[in-house]
Amino acid sequence: MSGDTGSTGPSAPLPPLSSHDRTRHHRLRDQGRADRAALDEILAAGFVCHLGVVVDGHPMVVPTVYGTDGTWLYLHGSVASRSLRAAPDATVCATVTHVDGLVLARSVFEHGVNYRSAVVYGVPRLVTDPAEKLTGLRLLTEQSAPGQWEYARRPSRKELAATALLALPLTEASVKIRTGAPDDGEGPDAELPVWAGTLPLVTTFGPLVPDPALRPDVAPPPHLADRAGTALG
Amino acid sequence: MSGDTGSTGPSAPLPPLSSHDRTRHHRLRDQGRADRAALDEILAAGFVCHLGVVVDGHPMVVPTVYGTDGTWLYLHGSVASRSLRAAPDATVCATVTHVDGLVLARSVFEHGVNYRSAVVYGVPRLVTDPAEKLTGLRLLTEQSAPGQWEYARRPSRKELAATALLALPLTEASVKIRTGAPDDGEGPDAELPVWAGTLPLVTTFGPLVPDPALRPDVAPPPHLADRAGTALG
Repeated sequence: MSGDTGSTGPSAPLPPLSSHDRTRHHRLRDQGRADRAALDEILAAGFVCHLGVVVDGHPMVVPTVYGTDGTWLYLHGSVASRSLRAAPDATVCATVTHVDGLVLARSVFEHGVNYRSAVVYGVPRLVTDPAEKLTGLRLLTEQSAPGQWEYARRPSRKELAATALLALPLTEASVKIRTGAPDDGEGPDAELPVWAGTLPLVTTFGPLVPDPALRPDVAPPPHLADRAGTALG
Repeated sequence: MSGDTGSTGPSAPLPPLSSHDRTRHHRLRDQGRADRAALDEILAAGFVCHLGVVVDGHPMVVPTVYGTDGTWLYLHGSVASRSLRAAPDATVCATVTHVDGLVLARSVFEHGVNYRSAVVYGVPRLVTDPAEKLTGLRLLTEQSAPGQWEYARRPSRKELAATALLALPLTEASVKIRTGAPDDGEGPDAELPVWAGTLPLVTTFGPLVPDPALRPDVAPPPHLADRAGTALG
């Protein structure tokens, strides 16, 4: 999180991600953790990214659903694809963030957020091959709602044609993670009579809400019914 | 959400936000709801935005904490302020998104996300006036952790000087909200024997986790202790 400090975690022995200037320069202190295992975990833990594109010289950031096979980040995006048609070689930025809790320090200055974020840069390609489009849409659907690709009606040819799908290579990325206690447990503030610690944030699925128009004889399948009460991220 | 359809909600009788081309053109169908009350609600419901800046012609999107007084969006951002020093008249984009649940339709094509998002555009200003900086930091602290500004140690002059705070005017924004059931409850798919509805997502605060270095005689104050179990957003 911009403004936070601190970092954690082991480095996994996997091929590192590339780190161009634009990924290097926005790492704060020692928070950089550009290993692929961490990237994969952060992407696996969510289904919405914030996609940044440049339109008429200005940044535009929109929330967009994604799916991934570890090599490509598939993005469901009419905005980005319109932007892409205008500037086919333009770099975009897709950021996935999980906010894990508040860091409550003894001083306001040391307050912060525990979080995991992955920032992916690249030039996306508009997916046109029908087979890859189907694969990408399956990954995208299963990312948020595992089991639905097999369960719900698959896209028709017309629906496939109406869907804009982008593929962003997972080759340049920056990962940042902050976990644990505040940083002022040592030093002069440690003696202040002020409570310090963290306040975790957890995102969970609630109970299913049936469509009012649902056929009365249709019960939710286990892959949906079992999800209520489980955590995301 | 890019790729979703549907919209809801009454329009509040408040002054509309300005709607330049860049806010208009990324509204999908009838999802635009550019009224200030909705903007205020979405900003009030969170404390992290995704800030987009243009660096060397490329978009960069970073999660950043914010606070607001309804007129300004205060951003805690070293990245953006560095970018701002390089291009002082550059527009940035700050997007706040709340993901409220999955929309599970009878067809994969109609799957989507219930969400609320606010996209704010503007040229930020680096806050240099000490009084405004203190006000902005108070708003920013209270946005995520109400009560902490009064409770924790306030910033020293040195800490204030070390903090980069930006103020973005809340004059140009686009709000999008999707709620409710899937859209295929009428039409041919309604007869499919497929469960349809929504799977809500709720973000809640968990129990406080004390800093291992916490003085053993310090108990959490009520404004923190009472927050466990409450929902965010």
